[in-house]
Amino acid sequence: MTEPLRLGIAGLGTVGIGVIKIVQKQAELLTARTGRQITITAVSARSRDKDRGVNLSKFAWEDDPVALAKRDDVDVFVELMGGSDGPAKAATEAALALGKHVVTANKAMLAVHGQALALEAEAHGVQLRFEAAVAGGIPVIKSLTESLAANQITRVMGVMNGTCNYILTRMESAGLPYETVFDEANALGYLEADPTLDVGGIDAGHKLAILASIAYGTQVDFNGIEIEGIERVSIEDIRYAGDMGYRIKLLGVAQMTGRGMESRMSPCLVPANSPLGTLEGPTNMCILEGDSVGQIVLRGAGAGEGPTASAVMGDVCDIARGINLPVFGQPSTTLRQAPAARSTVAAPYYLRMELADKPGALAKVATLLGEAGISIDRMRQTGHTEGSASVLIVTHRCTRDALDSALDAMPGTGVLTGTPVALRIEKV
Amino acid sequence: MTEPLRLGIAGLGTVGIGVIKIVQKQAELLTARTGRQITITAVSARSRDKDRGVNLSKFAWEDDPVALAKRDDVDVFVELMGGSDGPAKAATEAALALGKHVVTANKAMLAVHGQALALEAEAHGVQLRFEAAVAGGIPVIKSLTESLAANQITRVMGVMNGTCNYILTRMESAGLPYETVFDEANALGYLEADPTLDVGGIDAGHKLAILASIAYGTQVDFNGIEIEGIERVSIEDIRYAGDMGYRIKLLGVAQMTGRGMESRMSPCLVPANSPLGTLEGPTNMCILEGDSVGQIVLRGAGAGEGPTASAVMGDVCDIARGINLPVFGQPSTTLRQAPAARSTVAAPYYLRMELADKPGALAKVATLLGEAGISIDRMRQTGHTEGSASVLIVTHRCTRDALDSALDAMPGTGVLTGTPVALRIEKV
Repeated sequence: MTEPLRLGIAGLGTVGIGVIKIVQKQAELLTARTGRQITITAVSARSRDKDRGVNLSKFAWEDDPVALAKRDDVDVFVELMGGSDGPAKAATEAALALGKHVVTANKAMLAVHGQALALEAEAHGVQLRFEAAVAGGIPVIKSLTESLAANQITRVMGVMNGTCNYILTRMESAGLPYETVFDEANALGYLEADPTLDVGGIDAGHKLAILASIAYGTQVDFNGIEIEGIERVSIEDIRYAGDMGYRIKLLGVAQMTGRGMESRMSPCLVPANSPLGTLEGPTNMCILEGDSVGQIVLRGAGAGEGPTASAVMGDVCDIARGINLPVFGQPSTTLRQAPAARSTVAAPYYLRMELADKPGALAKVATLLGEAGISIDRMRQTGHTEGSASVLIVTHRCTRDALDSALDAMPGTGVLTGTPVALRIEKV
Repeated sequence: MTEPLRLGIAGLGTVGIGVIKIVQKQAELLTARTGRQITITAVSARSRDKDRGVNLSKFAWEDDPVALAKRDDVDVFVELMGGSDGPAKAATEAALALGKHVVTANKAMLAVHGQALALEAEAHGVQLRFEAAVAGGIPVIKSLTESLAANQITRVMGVMNGTCNYILTRMESAGLPYETVFDEANALGYLEADPTLDVGGIDAGHKLAILASIAYGTQVDFNGIEIEGIERVSIEDIRYAGDMGYRIKLLGVAQMTGRGMESRMSPCLVPANSPLGTLEGPTNMCILEGDSVGQIVLRGAGAGEGPTASAVMGDVCDIARGINLPVFGQPSTTLRQAPAARSTVAAPYYLRMELADKPGALAKVATLLGEAGISIDRMRQTGHTEGSASVLIVTHRCTRDALDSALDAMPGTGVLTGTPVALRIEKV
């Protein structure tokens, strides 16, 4: 038996406490499986006195996470503070510079500074691991990096923000508008301090940027992602989409195209009976597609104490077992900078337009779409109220550019009584 | 750059050819991701002259797979012949004895000889890897062994024989009896030469035995699995189950109980709207449950050239990257022998009985169930034909023993006009 593997944990929120509980409860199992004892030597958090329901007296305490990361008795720095910069980044850099492994759940830090941190980790021959940063307990990083290593990845997709999926499915099941359910979710503590991170699609965008880097051998490029949140998804569109056999999900999709990397995080329609369509509440789902393996669907809890701590500890076990991998699946010096390609992949779209209830209104809209080269797959007009009617259109595959040109010309017809809604229908 | 990793492939069926195609097509990608060139030096199969659509002239040929396994220019022996014994086992043993890594898709060999082969591999410090042996392209072995290493596993489940799931879902969608769909599947080449391996649940049982070993740190025990095939699943039961919101799946379940390992491969009812319930055609699904991670669902193609070859090559990439793990997740010298516990975990059951259409028949059945301590959750009587009526009962949770004692006493009532059907309802 080799020496124990000693952890220093910075950040004692839900996940940090979950990690401590696993190390204590499963000590025997961890040693049996990794061949090493796994221990915690020191911890750090903002408040030393807060009651966290766990006895911390056996661990050394550091007020400063950087000091924790530098301790001689820490082999693996476990970063669970969050935030793309500040103490998380400073402490991670300090640990890597001293040749210590780092395990983190920090998607923001990786999405923004992943390339620099990976270079640093690989220069020092240490591991920087982050299974917990994407989709909580779901083993998506490992599956993509290792299991699918012999595949050219053709598409990566995911519903990776549980709060958004909770809001969307709750709107549907309770028939409530976005604002009401948002307030409910807030009262339940489901939202980040800055809710835009969740409902604005930023948190999920961070995760997509990480997956795309591994999938396509590119440098993490969070700024290259087209991001649209769920704030403007209406209960009407959820209902109409449902009537046509679809559900609306905040879906991240990354594909490599001839023009560069196309990555989007946006509300999309998916078939209601597909795995994505059946996803309820805060559950997450990642879909990996490769040229040999076809489609792999991974589903599980995307957050929470147990699932996220399980992912953190999975990485710790890999390190205890001596597994040694490049941070993003290939040496970071070889990762390419791919240009961001915006919406080049054609798709069918769901359109909803409120039209004035007068003769020829529908014809004008249909003509405009036709002129933009967009053909109509299905159309439905719902009962009209107060002089306007909702017209629902599912188009055949078209480019976003063609669609935007048609939408731009729409107000000129003089028949719209509201702003049109256009949502992509992703083939899954 | 280190030396190339040289493969010797024994067995050039669908999967072997798939592996060759990946090695040739993705040479650059494999080297970028693993840091090593991956090459094929020699191959072996029954017939040298068969046209397989791939140029084999660059590889050395061996008629004897054992000779292939022993070649000095082979670092990894890739065993894709199948069969629990015979040439597959002889060649695998020869490779391990010479300190060569082995990658195999051979579930039968591992289910029967896994413990001995693991001891041999670990004694020589080499890898014996088999992701492709369970559920094709789905990364279930890696997820269980590595990602969930910090979890006490509480249940492992899976639909792991695509042919059976094809037959069951085709029976339902086409309204055809088992025999007809079996013949269809046979004509389509979906069945093994000995179809009992598929429809008898043996192939899926092999896979469950492997998963259970990793999950619970026990020696592989194929004989400890209760196996029931799908041969007696009737279109009537599929329909009735559907009416009550369930679907019938050939489901493997392994749980550690106070009395030992309970592992079953049998037709079960699962909720139609659950991930398992929505599984169509030959797709496979594995569900892993751990004390921290909760429930992880993995779905994908369980067979076929691309998916299975992807899994084989994922293992090869691990070896190229120097990943070094015990065969079943912990050293095989430490794997326990767990007694097989037969049906100790209680569950609700679906019962169908054909009762004579005479007064008091239903009361007699209900009384018998009550006397066995089995309470009824739901009951439904369908229209009767020719003097008998189908009675459907969903019980509350009961043990299989209690149920069997009631079923044993059933003929004594004199009201049955056929053999009762009893299927477990698995909570998923």
